[in-house]
Amino acid sequence: MLMEKYQKLKDYFKGKKVIVSYSGGIDSSLVAKVSSDNAKYTLAITIDNGFFSEDAVNNAIERAKKYNINHKIIKMNYMDSEDIISKINNDLKNRCYFCKKFMAEELVKEKNKLSDNVINNDIIIVDGTNYDDLFEDRPGMRAYKEYNIKSPLAELKFSKNDIINISKYLNLDIPKKDTCLATRVLNPPITEEKLKMVERAERFLASFLNIEGYFRVRHFYDIAIIEINKDEVYKFETDIDNLKTINKKFKEIGFKKCVLDFNLK
Amino acid sequence: MLMEKYQKLKDYFKGKKVIVSYSGGIDSSLVAKVSSDNAKYTLAITIDNGFFSEDAVNNAIERAKKYNINHKIIKMNYMDSEDIISKINNDLKNRCYFCKKFMAEELVKEKNKLSDNVINNDIIIVDGTNYDDLFEDRPGMRAYKEYNIKSPLAELKFSKNDIINISKYLNLDIPKKDTCLATRVLNPPITEEKLKMVERAERFLASFLNIEGYFRVRHFYDIAIIEINKDEVYKFETDIDNLKTINKKFKEIGFKKCVLDFNLK
Repeated sequence: MLMEKYQKLKDYFKGKKVIVSYSGGIDSSLVAKVSSDNAKYTLAITIDNGFFSEDAVNNAIERAKKYNINHKIIKMNYMDSEDIISKINNDLKNRCYFCKKFMAEELVKEKNKLSDNVINNDIIIVDGTNYDDLFEDRPGMRAYKEYNIKSPLAELKFSKNDIINISKYLNLDIPKKDTCLATRVLNPPITEEKLKMVERAERFLASFLNIEGYFRVRHFYDIAIIEINKDEVYKFETDIDNLKTINKKFKEIGFKKCVLDFNLK
Repeated sequence: MLMEKYQKLKDYFKGKKVIVSYSGGIDSSLVAKVSSDNAKYTLAITIDNGFFSEDAVNNAIERAKKYNINHKIIKMNYMDSEDIISKINNDLKNRCYFCKKFMAEELVKEKNKLSDNVINNDIIIVDGTNYDDLFEDRPGMRAYKEYNIKSPLAELKFSKNDIINISKYLNLDIPKKDTCLATRVLNPPITEEKLKMVERAERFLASFLNIEGYFRVRHFYDIAIIEINKDEVYKFETDIDNLKTINKKFKEIGFKKCVLDFNLK
């Protein structure tokens, strides 16, 4: 059953020329790897838009090397573009839509550049959206659809579990989940400074308390709001001095207050 | 030594006609009581400006009755006066100054009304400011000074300890400290709704966790920030279900989030 799905995925890419929107996460890694091994031509593109941590971008580079994936990084820091960042800041609810739209435009530009070189222009662009994702409200997906970006994992009904199992079968490491830092900023504007603060705070906290599951540091009017799993909240509670240390560190990072959200995940 | 101070306080009021700015707290209760027992005439006035909890106002009424203090409540809800509340909201840092200024004006009006009746007009207005208060930055005190309101406890160098000891000597109960609800609102505007939310949240939390020491619920952009003593923070931690219950209750009250401040007092 799983092998049938895998075969369909390989068939999907056979004879094609493919650009993969590649983040280094488990989904787009699988797509990039299977395309690399089966398509006529594959280019995995990571758009470093300033919304992901340095760790996330480095992870994408390392995995591409490790799995022999033809890879290109495009730097287009949203914070450097008044036009882009103001669109996002003026309508924070739709930030994912705008973000993906700008990324899609960039991918299409790359496709057009390539088409000039590769004679025929039947290049497809694909991403890592899977079947489970379809049932969530993701405005970003809508943007990719508008630019005719395909989602083979969703089309072939790959669940997250299928993806984990086939990744294991192909000996692909399961990467740590990296998520967009911009979602940490609860009130506009999103700025480079706020993203850096959140990144530093999360990196510190993860190692200080050895947090393994879900956790986020949100930026809300200069306050850091920590969201944590109910199974790991005890890590804050073992020692009151921990709270003091965290509070001090977060103030050094630039937050005015550091608080714990009672809405445990 | 203490009895000497007490004697001086009694002498302070001898033969005078006195209006006491009276909140029902330990300081102004002592002033109102000693004035009642020694002055020619005493009227304790509580200005119910909407910034104190119902409990606080009721406490002032009950204590006045219990200790036989001539007492008057003046209702002047700041939230009903566009002029007053907009001055406070436009300059939240100086809210204590404006608040006391409006209260002082009201006390002076009352004094003038009384003067018509009591033939001569050598009435003094006093408050409960003590000697320790002088060393804190309290913009409210400045406003009272501008209206020539006297502070006998400060003038006679009564420390908080002196006040506690003389209150005990006079068999006056030590009341629970009630503080201004407006200080709970961290971002303007101060509204009746926000004050009610904070009042309900604090009342619930105090009884749910049986909190005895310092604690506050602050209102910050629809988030409830709980501040607690380091000696009582364990009360949140004994049971994860407590956090869920508190979170649910605070949402019912109208907060979007409920969080704990790591800056333990």
